[in-house]
Amino acid sequence: MNIDLKEYITEKRAKIDQFIIEYFQPFIIPQVLHDSVLYSLTAGGKRIRPLLCIASYEACNGKEDIIPYAVAIEFIHTYSLIHDDLPAMDNDDLRRGKPTNHKVFGEGIAILAGDGLLTEAFRILSNPLYAKIKADTLLRVIYEISMAAGLRGMVAGQAYDLISEGREPNREIVEFIHLHKTAAMIRASVKTGALLAEASEDKINRLESYGEAIGLAFQIVDDILDIESTTEVMGKPQGSDIQKGKMTYPRVYGIEKSRQKAKELIDKALERLSIFDEKAEPLRQIAFYIFKRTS
Amino acid sequence: MNIDLKEYITEKRAKIDQFIIEYFQPFIIPQVLHDSVLYSLTAGGKRIRPLLCIASYEACNGKEDIIPYAVAIEFIHTYSLIHDDLPAMDNDDLRRGKPTNHKVFGEGIAILAGDGLLTEAFRILSNPLYAKIKADTLLRVIYEISMAAGLRGMVAGQAYDLISEGREPNREIVEFIHLHKTAAMIRASVKTGALLAEASEDKINRLESYGEAIGLAFQIVDDILDIESTTEVMGKPQGSDIQKGKMTYPRVYGIEKSRQKAKELIDKALERLSIFDEKAEPLRQIAFYIFKRTS
Repeated sequence: MNIDLKEYITEKRAKIDQFIIEYFQPFIIPQVLHDSVLYSLTAGGKRIRPLLCIASYEACNGKEDIIPYAVAIEFIHTYSLIHDDLPAMDNDDLRRGKPTNHKVFGEGIAILAGDGLLTEAFRILSNPLYAKIKADTLLRVIYEISMAAGLRGMVAGQAYDLISEGREPNREIVEFIHLHKTAAMIRASVKTGALLAEASEDKINRLESYGEAIGLAFQIVDDILDIESTTEVMGKPQGSDIQKGKMTYPRVYGIEKSRQKAKELIDKALERLSIFDEKAEPLRQIAFYIFKRTS
Repeated sequence: MNIDLKEYITEKRAKIDQFIIEYFQPFIIPQVLHDSVLYSLTAGGKRIRPLLCIASYEACNGKEDIIPYAVAIEFIHTYSLIHDDLPAMDNDDLRRGKPTNHKVFGEGIAILAGDGLLTEAFRILSNPLYAKIKADTLLRVIYEISMAAGLRGMVAGQAYDLISEGREPNREIVEFIHLHKTAAMIRASVKTGALLAEASEDKINRLESYGEAIGLAFQIVDDILDIESTTEVMGKPQGSDIQKGKMTYPRVYGIEKSRQKAKELIDKALERLSIFDEKAEPLRQIAFYIFKRTS
């Protein structure tokens, strides 16, 4: 199948955006909370995680409209960015070229917006009315996502990221951070698609390790872009990881070896897709896109 | 049935505490995150919400061990306290007579500990191996709890609480705050017990409104205690609500009318239990306890 990734992404993104807008009608009260949540949800995110979830679902022959469940993952991603930008965490003023949530709405509301988005994700995932999905499948999805996002997943990665600032580069710690902070939720996004499609355990496992590989590659490329890109393209200050003494891949391995590692991970991810037919084409192209992205 | 509430609570609390300790073996990494989470989970909470969940389950003839699901609710409660105490929120230094989480572990780790506890709650609720509960029942429980805790529940109440500080007392706003900030999760705790027991819709509805009534009463008594109790008994500074210009019941209605309102709510709650047999005795006694508590 010759798919146009750009067209594929544009079409899915429109549906994702539409669901987000509709989900917040009627308005949340108080209004400042509503505005804060919508501000970050519509701040120009690439929607990589929900796109991966949908592409994985389609690669496994899924036929239902699973946009709501995919959007739940974007809610969790968005919450993690809002909290990550807080002064007590990364203390970032800019995200995707715009002031961060707490800069606009204050820290208290930003914390609550994040808390609320995380919680709403599970409200969406536990609503069986969105598509014909079995209850025990949805339970398994909730389990996977909460494990990937929780105290032994993304939160652990963020905590290590926080306490490692300014420390000597260390291979074990940078691996731990990348695996937990970024790869865990990307892996869970891909796995969710496979679970929702009731794929075979073999396919679920393959997609899971595809997801982990591109998740790690994504973070390594992110680390490289922090050094090589510009503030304009990135939408956040160039070199901010270095300035904060972040435990990044290039700091531990150097730029060339980091790029090579990312390439290996993409190759590994593509290998895992080998048994899939042309319906996995978007997943293959997303892997390339992650390696080649510039922002 | 002549139950000794003290004995009942002591026995259940021991099981709740045991599950919490076991849940965090093996250790969470990094250790500071582990310590932060355990610090707040074992800081002497009254365990009202899980107790209500268990008592409601037993009132509906439930026979399984549902401690894990009840503890999930305590995780959500604990997360809400950790975030609520943050400088950007209520800025409290003491909670139950001890330094608040961020005072001990720093703001960044406190935010992450709260995020992690909220997420883990859903991991527990989506694990079907803890007891013989149907998948669609667990889904419904997750839906109820996430609705009560989310952007249209507890988080909305906290947001209104935050933005209303220092404003003129207002009946509508204080009702909204109490209903969302406190009563929603207490209602959901009681309802969860009924759902897990597969109770009739009539019983579920009755327990839900019992839960909402005692939840509102709980918050009104809390507001009164803030004025009438001492710092030693409360474990936090006496009069702190007034000092912060919080929108409390006594500020809007005066102390006497507030006490009367709490009494009416307890009477209403007990009336809702009228069709239940002696297995609802703990629920009846907890209603009295909430009205008469001194800390």
